Amino acid sequence: MVIIMNSDAKSEEIKAVVERVHSVGLKTHIVEGEKKTIIGVIGDKSIMARLTIDAMSGVDKSVEVSSSYKLVSREFHPMDSIVDVAGVKIGGGNLIVMAGPCAVESREQLFEAADIVKAGGAQFLRGGAYKPRTSPYAFQGLETEGLKYLAEARERTGLKIVTEVTEVQAIETVAKYADMLQIGARNMQNFGLLREVGRSNKPVLLKRGLAATINEWLHAAEYILSEGNQNVVLCERGIRTYEEYTRNTLDLSAVGIINHLSHLPIIVDPSHGTGKWRQVKPMAMAAVAAGADGLMIEVHPNPEKALSDGTQSLCPENYYKTMNSVFKLAEFIKTENL
Amino acid sequence: MVIIMNSDAKSEEIKAVVERVHSVGLKTHIVEGEKKTIIGVIGDKSIMARLTIDAMSGVDKSVEVSSSYKLVSREFHPMDSIVDVAGVKIGGGNLIVMAGPCAVESREQLFEAADIVKAGGAQFLRGGAYKPRTSPYAFQGLETEGLKYLAEARERTGLKIVTEVTEVQAIETVAKYADMLQIGARNMQNFGLLREVGRSNKPVLLKRGLAATINEWLHAAEYILSEGNQNVVLCERGIRTYEEYTRNTLDLSAVGIINHLSHLPIIVDPSHGTGKWRQVKPMAMAAVAAGADGLMIEVHPNPEKALSDGTQSLCPENYYKTMNSVFKLAEFIKTENL
Amino acid sequence: MVIIMNSDAKSEEIKAVVERVHSVGLKTHIVEGEKKTIIGVIGDKSIMARLTIDAMSGVDKSVEVSSSYKLVSREFHPMDSIVDVAGVKIGGGNLIVMAGPCAVESREQLFEAADIVKAGGAQFLRGGAYKPRTSPYAFQGLETEGLKYLAEARERTGLKIVTEVTEVQAIETVAKYADMLQIGARNMQNFGLLREVGRSNKPVLLKRGLAATINEWLHAAEYILSEGNQNVVLCERGIRTYEEYTRNTLDLSAVGIINHLSHLPIIVDPSHGTGKWRQVKPMAMAAVAAGADGLMIEVHPNPEKALSDGTQSLCPENYYKTMNSVFKLAEFIKTENL
Amino acid sequence: MVIIMNSDAKSEEIKAVVERVHSVGLKTHIVEGEKKTIIGVIGDKSIMARLTIDAMSGVDKSVEVSSSYKLVSREFHPMDSIVDVAGVKIGGGNLIVMAGPCAVESREQLFEAADIVKAGGAQFLRGGAYKPRTSPYAFQGLETEGLKYLAEARERTGLKIVTEVTEVQAIETVAKYADMLQIGARNMQNFGLLREVGRSNKPVLLKRGLAATINEWLHAAEYILSEGNQNVVLCERGIRTYEEYTRNTLDLSAVGIINHLSHLPIIVDPSHGTGKWRQVKPMAMAAVAAGADGLMIEVHPNPEKALSDGTQSLCPENYYKTMNSVFKLAEFIKTENL
Repeated sequence: MVIIMNSDAKSEEIKAVVERVHSVGLKTHIVEGEKKTIIGVIGDKSIMARLTIDAMSGVDKSVEVSSSYKLVSREFHPMDSIVDVAGVKIGGGNLIVMAGPCAVESREQLFEAADIVKAGGAQFLRGGAYKPRTSPYAFQGLETEGLKYLAEARERTGLKIVTEVTEVQAIETVAKYADMLQIGARNMQNFGLLREVGRSNKPVLLKRGLAATINEWLHAAEYILSEGNQNVVLCERGIRTYEEYTRNTLDLSAVGIINHLSHLPIIVDPSHGTGKWRQVKPMAMAAVAAGADGLMIEVHPNPEKALSDGTQSLCPENYYKTMNSVFKLAEFIKTENL
Repeated sequence: MVIIMNSDAKSEEIKAVVERVHSVGLKTHIVEGEKKTIIGVIGDKSIMARLTIDAMSGVDKSVEVSSSYKLVSREFHPMDSIVDVAGVKIGGGNLIVMAGPCAVESREQLFEAADIVKAGGAQFLRGGAYKPRTSPYAFQGLETEGLKYLAEARERTGLKIVTEVTEVQAIETVAKYADMLQIGARNMQNFGLLREVGRSNKPVLLKRGLAATINEWLHAAEYILSEGNQNVVLCERGIRTYEEYTRNTLDLSAVGIINHLSHLPIIVDPSHGTGKWRQVKPMAMAAVAAGADGLMIEVHPNPEKALSDGTQSLCPENYYKTMNSVFKLAEFIKTENL
Repeated sequence: MVIIMNSDAKSEEIKAVVERVHSVGLKTHIVEGEKKTIIGVIGDKSIMARLTIDAMSGVDKSVEVSSSYKLVSREFHPMDSIVDVAGVKIGGGNLIVMAGPCAVESREQLFEAADIVKAGGAQFLRGGAYKPRTSPYAFQGLETEGLKYLAEARERTGLKIVTEVTEVQAIETVAKYADMLQIGARNMQNFGLLREVGRSNKPVLLKRGLAATINEWLHAAEYILSEGNQNVVLCERGIRTYEEYTRNTLDLSAVGIINHLSHLPIIVDPSHGTGKWRQVKPMAMAAVAAGADGLMIEVHPNPEKALSDGTQSLCPENYYKTMNSVFKLAEFIKTENL
Repeated sequence: MVIIMNSDAKSEEIKAVVERVHSVGLKTHIVEGEKKTIIGVIGDKSIMARLTIDAMSGVDKSVEVSSSYKLVSREFHPMDSIVDVAGVKIGGGNLIVMAGPCAVESREQLFEAADIVKAGGAQFLRGGAYKPRTSPYAFQGLETEGLKYLAEARERTGLKIVTEVTEVQAIETVAKYADMLQIGARNMQNFGLLREVGRSNKPVLLKRGLAATINEWLHAAEYILSEGNQNVVLCERGIRTYEEYTRNTLDLSAVGIINHLSHLPIIVDPSHGTGKWRQVKPMAMAAVAAGADGLMIEVHPNPEKALSDGTQSLCPENYYKTMNSVFKLAEFIKTENL
């Protein structure tokens, strides 16, 4: 249940409502909006039904939340969330781009990539230091060394750093170097990891699982928010289907659906979503037109020499063309209010 | 194999090449472009390899076509195809919209819908007279009566008519009333039906099968072209996946992939593709940004009273808003050459 | 709704019930069992609710059928159906095997195959004369010539003939030569074809569509039964999933589910279901243990020379081994009543 | 590459081969069979190609391993592996059953369940103490308390204990109480967890991921074996498809495929695989007939009161019937060598 207070509700009235809720054994989650305060109620629905909160002073109305996720629900938190990552705001109308190589391969490769990423206008540098790979014999990432290069690249370019964390034990280290923690598709239901990043104070980028439903994805985000970390951005990266031409099937309908069901920002990764560099630009354009808050794009100085995911990485020239188009498109859609 | 003639090749030279190909038992398919003539060769690859066509007078070069579909391949026909439907051109840069109710339910309903469709700026009226339904006890369409209403609606509005044909026996009748024959998703591999519309002189709209790969879809189109009908437009309408929130998963990557692999125009149906009216506008915008040549959209005067697919039909107000946005978007992308 | 009459209900009582149902505009479907007569009622549920049939003389009780398919439902027809194909009974406890090559390639190949099939103990010879192929340039079958060879092979071996019909226009010809008409996976929702075989007097083998749900499959069968042909056998042949190792994913759970929801017999095709000859025997064994009424298996005298589906065809030796095991297994399960 | 030594190879010869391999920077994995020693070689293929091992004394031959997984491959280890779990052998011909409730709910519930499980003839008690749940608000398991009840149930019944471990931090605790560690479907690609159980000395039950390919699954097992723990049993538990009737689609073809590609034992979980108690018996029978080494089955004293997965749990009566049938079936197949 969500309790919406009047715009002129007094703090004593809010406090009284919260106490009433607590008195019957339910929990609260308070969202202080610019105009109104909203109180989320978590717990047994049959107890909520007997609360008769609407009669209390200062209460505008109470609304039943129909889904089993609460904190991520738009019913619970009607305003769009804006996630601030070291000063860069995700959500709320500006197009954010996270670009870079799949994996940090060397200091030189990363710096070269970072300069290209910066020149194209992206705000974030991406790059994996810990790589979850299907085979134990494949390149597993440079780990701490990779994290240090990422931090150096931030110094060099001013780009914010987003990088994947795959284990609870690595959170502290990754959080030391990165501005935003990425939870990869394979770990979307690694609930221990979700809980632990929920207890950190770093913003989290939560990728959709390989074959996760939108409902499961929102519940995964709920794990993070329910531990106290409200700074979650979702990332659609394609789902597993029978189609063989593409690596995954990029489910762009997730953008509009998440915007309808949740207040969290959502970005799109057309590189993993298609697995083909040729399809990155059309799907990046489509994502922006569908209302995505940002893009995650793989760029490599020399895609044919990449240690992983070369076939889906843009070369510098195509990256610049794509950036030019997507930023113009985003600006037009915003200005014209389409 | 595709033989590309010099831009100044003489007709005798072209004729000589064709005769040479025929002399070894292979077939030809001739595409006369504005600048060059291209000759497609169909048959045994080992025989082709011995042809030594490149040495003949007037020949620029010959190119191996790597796919097992030929006539629909961009290797075979490098220029974009433009399909002319009763004067309206599909492909080549203008956004085409086909809109209307899922099914023709009555003369009044159809006329009301047609007026709305026209007012929104679409060029085509869609509406099923023959409805393939999962259950034999569900509404199966008004059949010939429905076709007559569609023809009347054309008189009334000037809109072109696209409607589904489900059986070989009905092609002649449907072709009498409609401007374009639609092959529905369930019939994408009804090869007898494909062959037969391939022998008609009406343009064909070929929807992607419920769980068809892009490769199978292009081969289905090949069935039509190989019978002589080159006027085929493809329509992405969503594929079957595990996701339960949407009716289908709209695979927008198909737009860029088809544009890469084939010269045929492609349009997108976000109504069937999502099954949710709220998701129609964002996915229509995305389809345009991805490079689609057109849209197919369900509109109903009173969606809540529709005999089929009410939950995915736009009401008039949302239809007008969507049209306004998609046409502005298409114009911007074209003007700016994004 | 299903009306179950008392075991000693008189024919006048049955007649009176039927007339009562007809008098309010509903239709009936009568199943005369050994002990009881059951009357199925089709039409508007709100009218049924007002019928008060239970008070009529000779009526045991009436039961609501919850699914939207009726005639195929076990609620409607509680006893197992046994389908008689030219004297061979499918359903009711004996294991039926349909074996043979994917396609009829020549008189010699078919006769050689038929002799092997017979020697292994199968009761049916399968073989395609009309082949629905993804590409228009692939081998499309010998058509009428193939049908004649099949009929000759029947003379030679006594095996019953099951073969695919792909078009309404071909039903009459195929029915002249075959004992059982097969509707292939690609035509499971070719509703015109379903209706037309529903009007023929030949038993029908209805394969599950490439990506059909069990619910859609039962509705497809309902199209056939609703036209009067009750002799339908279902065939599970694998569904389309993301798994790449197998051609399809054989959904053996369909056997138990169909046995629960419907009275129709069900057989399993492990050849198309896996696409790998090595997996045919384990999945044939599994199908029998799951309760399937029969198997459809591809056998080829020389699998490596097959014009289609060679990789999934058993060679004679493996076919004999498989038959030996499945018949022993079926006998054991029946005797022990497992 | 795999090097197969002669049956009478001397230990010095084996040692010489190993040293030669190590001298060029490659690693070895030695399998000492009853008759022969086999040496697996891991590392750069181009270096292997130059080794000319076949000329060395005592070497029978060397074989290229074509897959990118090695230690789990049957090419690498041709004999069937038998995994010993506290004296119970999995693989090698006996049917093993692991049964019990989805979750440990209370001491009483578990003891009641354990007595039923034992009475039915199963060798293992299953039951989750740590439950990975879609929603953070769902029952998450009794954790250490649940583990203690499991250990007590072992004392009471003699059943071996298999239970899920979801986090690296919990491995030590779970290993203290359990005989076998289960890695659940959601953690199949939690590579840190795989590595860590690979370093423990407990046998591991590795469930197939929700939408994992067989190739990915075998690579996940390779992570465990490559850390030194060879005692891995695979468990097919259904994959995610579009079908809505069942919770998952149980891919029984995995049994025959794993038996072909790998030497590891494989068991089947028809409870999660179908999500419907009615389908558990037919699919358990099918799994045994397909060649599975065991079954994992959910049993609950009162399925309708279960805190999770009640609809797929067998009641005691149906459990006993199922056990009776599957053990008879397994015995028959073994005796008759089908």
